[in-house]
Amino acid sequence: MSQKKDTKSAGEVETKYFNLPDDKKFILENGVQLQGLKLAYETYGQLNEKKTNAVLICHALSGDAHAAGYHPGEKKPGWWEDMIGPDKAFDTNKYFVICSNIIGGCKGSSGPNSIDPSTGNPYGLSFPIVSIKDMINAQKELIEYLGVEKLLTVCGGSMGGMQALQWAVSYPDITFSCIPIATTYKHSAQQIAFDEVGRQAIMSDPAWNGGNYCEKEHPSAGLAVARMIGHITYMSNDSMEKKFGRMLKKEKLGYEFSTEFEVEGYLRYRGDSFVKRFDANSYLYITKAMDYFDIQKKQSLHQAFKDVKARFLVIAFSSDWLYPPFQSKEILKALKMNGINVTYCEISSDYGHDAFLLEFKEETKLVKHFLASTKKKLEKEI
Amino acid sequence: MSQKKDTKSAGEVETKYFNLPDDKKFILENGVQLQGLKLAYETYGQLNEKKTNAVLICHALSGDAHAAGYHPGEKKPGWWEDMIGPDKAFDTNKYFVICSNIIGGCKGSSGPNSIDPSTGNPYGLSFPIVSIKDMINAQKELIEYLGVEKLLTVCGGSMGGMQALQWAVSYPDITFSCIPIATTYKHSAQQIAFDEVGRQAIMSDPAWNGGNYCEKEHPSAGLAVARMIGHITYMSNDSMEKKFGRMLKKEKLGYEFSTEFEVEGYLRYRGDSFVKRFDANSYLYITKAMDYFDIQKKQSLHQAFKDVKARFLVIAFSSDWLYPPFQSKEILKALKMNGINVTYCEISSDYGHDAFLLEFKEETKLVKHFLASTKKKLEKEI
Repeated sequence: MSQKKDTKSAGEVETKYFNLPDDKKFILENGVQLQGLKLAYETYGQLNEKKTNAVLICHALSGDAHAAGYHPGEKKPGWWEDMIGPDKAFDTNKYFVICSNIIGGCKGSSGPNSIDPSTGNPYGLSFPIVSIKDMINAQKELIEYLGVEKLLTVCGGSMGGMQALQWAVSYPDITFSCIPIATTYKHSAQQIAFDEVGRQAIMSDPAWNGGNYCEKEHPSAGLAVARMIGHITYMSNDSMEKKFGRMLKKEKLGYEFSTEFEVEGYLRYRGDSFVKRFDANSYLYITKAMDYFDIQKKQSLHQAFKDVKARFLVIAFSSDWLYPPFQSKEILKALKMNGINVTYCEISSDYGHDAFLLEFKEETKLVKHFLASTKKKLEKEI
Repeated sequence: MSQKKDTKSAGEVETKYFNLPDDKKFILENGVQLQGLKLAYETYGQLNEKKTNAVLICHALSGDAHAAGYHPGEKKPGWWEDMIGPDKAFDTNKYFVICSNIIGGCKGSSGPNSIDPSTGNPYGLSFPIVSIKDMINAQKELIEYLGVEKLLTVCGGSMGGMQALQWAVSYPDITFSCIPIATTYKHSAQQIAFDEVGRQAIMSDPAWNGGNYCEKEHPSAGLAVARMIGHITYMSNDSMEKKFGRMLKKEKLGYEFSTEFEVEGYLRYRGDSFVKRFDANSYLYITKAMDYFDIQKKQSLHQAFKDVKARFLVIAFSSDWLYPPFQSKEILKALKMNGINVTYCEISSDYGHDAFLLEFKEETKLVKHFLASTKKKLEKEI
């Protein structure tokens, strides 16, 4: 139970680890068998008796299993604290909220810096390429282990939204509803392009060394550049202009190559802090998984959604140019063409892609009602 | 005279070099005196007797003095061949067209890889920071040397447009008209951000070595990444999607980190070819000059244009998100507020920022009429 005074927080939480039993095989989309599948996850709230209140939260590129509450001794709460907790959008008094980390990452689940059991050393680039589908297949093992047979909803923003969509397509009988936020059904050429430049920045850093680096000498310069590119795409032109404009870090221009503009300082700070908490190889694997993501494959999007049973709440943000609203509208259209119950909401926001983490007040109103009505519907059906 | 059969080309041309006479000082905006100012330039057509037909073309980041015609033995014409030549927008039968290279670059003018007369070695980072204003002040010396007292027009796209605007502001009595294309009156936070990431990519490449590198071992990896970022911003989301979409370079996904998508191949090719023709330090200096560009400084844009006498043709492109049309419209408004004769045309195009090099048919129609009427006006006035 929570030790915190803040009754609106999930309180003290801990990251747990799920290991796939040895008698179970985990085969990736590319045919490779992944040895010793491990997933980091957290849960908040309790699974009810009817098992109608389980919610799965999927995270974005740099997220982790710690979505809400506080780790002992830490002041910073989980990454979606604004949305998950008592009385919040994902009300932990009502719902059993699971946040699963992804495979391929560096936050406790199987990934390129896991130990390869066949060598005793970190995998590095010998870790197999994983897809969004692989990520959710791993999560499927986790929810089974947790005794969850039906997910009231699967929700995520950005890459989390891709996972949510994939859940609805891959597991129509488990996914009762789906809330994809600020996401897409396939990575576009421009989205691939931004990821590729980030990867090139990492791979051209000599410290990357073909993926074989130690923690002390990792490709921090390349990873920082990759993250800086990312941050530009997360903000809108307007939000950057409002936050930084042409403001200087010093009194006047110095006619030199140091950090002169506030926006430069911000990007460098973001880059530098990222390299302390993220692994460069994981950055390669996760961006690759996003670039591979194409839920329609060679069929129409209409066709791709033909077996979907979930009802949907699709949320996009007006100034998000990384995952622009038109991509969410295409999801809306294709779902509608399949007669699926779908609500589309475009939230007016200046924050760009970052809005999915910042516009929680609007999101809360939308999600709360959607979850309540969805739960009623689920309980009627069973 | 042209040896080419193509009568629509300026034909065989050569790059010439202007050296500021030793008895003249060239003081930069930051107060530093630049020794031995040198400018590469080309001219096409002839200056008429009344000297009413001189046109100055200013180039963009990676451009050079070779805007039109062919260098002996070369198959590739100048970078704006579509716009400059007999019967073209800048009709070399009618106009005396000058294209001046910029200082700070690496295409024959004074820049960081010029020899520092005080050491006998290339300047590297000891070359002083230059501004857009410094670039056009150098061009002013050049046109004086060429006997030009009045510029019928100054025209340029992207950074060339910044130079054109600066001409109109700094030299209102010389600049009779101005054609800024796909440009801005000040670099925004987002524009600075993209440049800064490019610079960080270069400066974090160990081969950069604080700016002291030799041609054999230059920071090609960092410069390639910088250029790749640039190319994403030069294209629109739509044009990338139409040109590449999710097309693969091979039959199917290989589940590895090689170049798999066409768009990745395109970016890598663009990066690799750029490093063969461009200098990394110059990239730093030129992007810095653009980031410093702010024609309004601490006053309103209306105020900044108060002494302008030129008439204007302002051109922007609908899908240009690097220098979006709204920035051109702000130029339009501020000029109008000063009672200046200005025409604004937004060309509908999918090509993004690249459109200023590609939409030459539309540009030709606009520029031809504007130049003809402007010349009539100039000849009436003198």
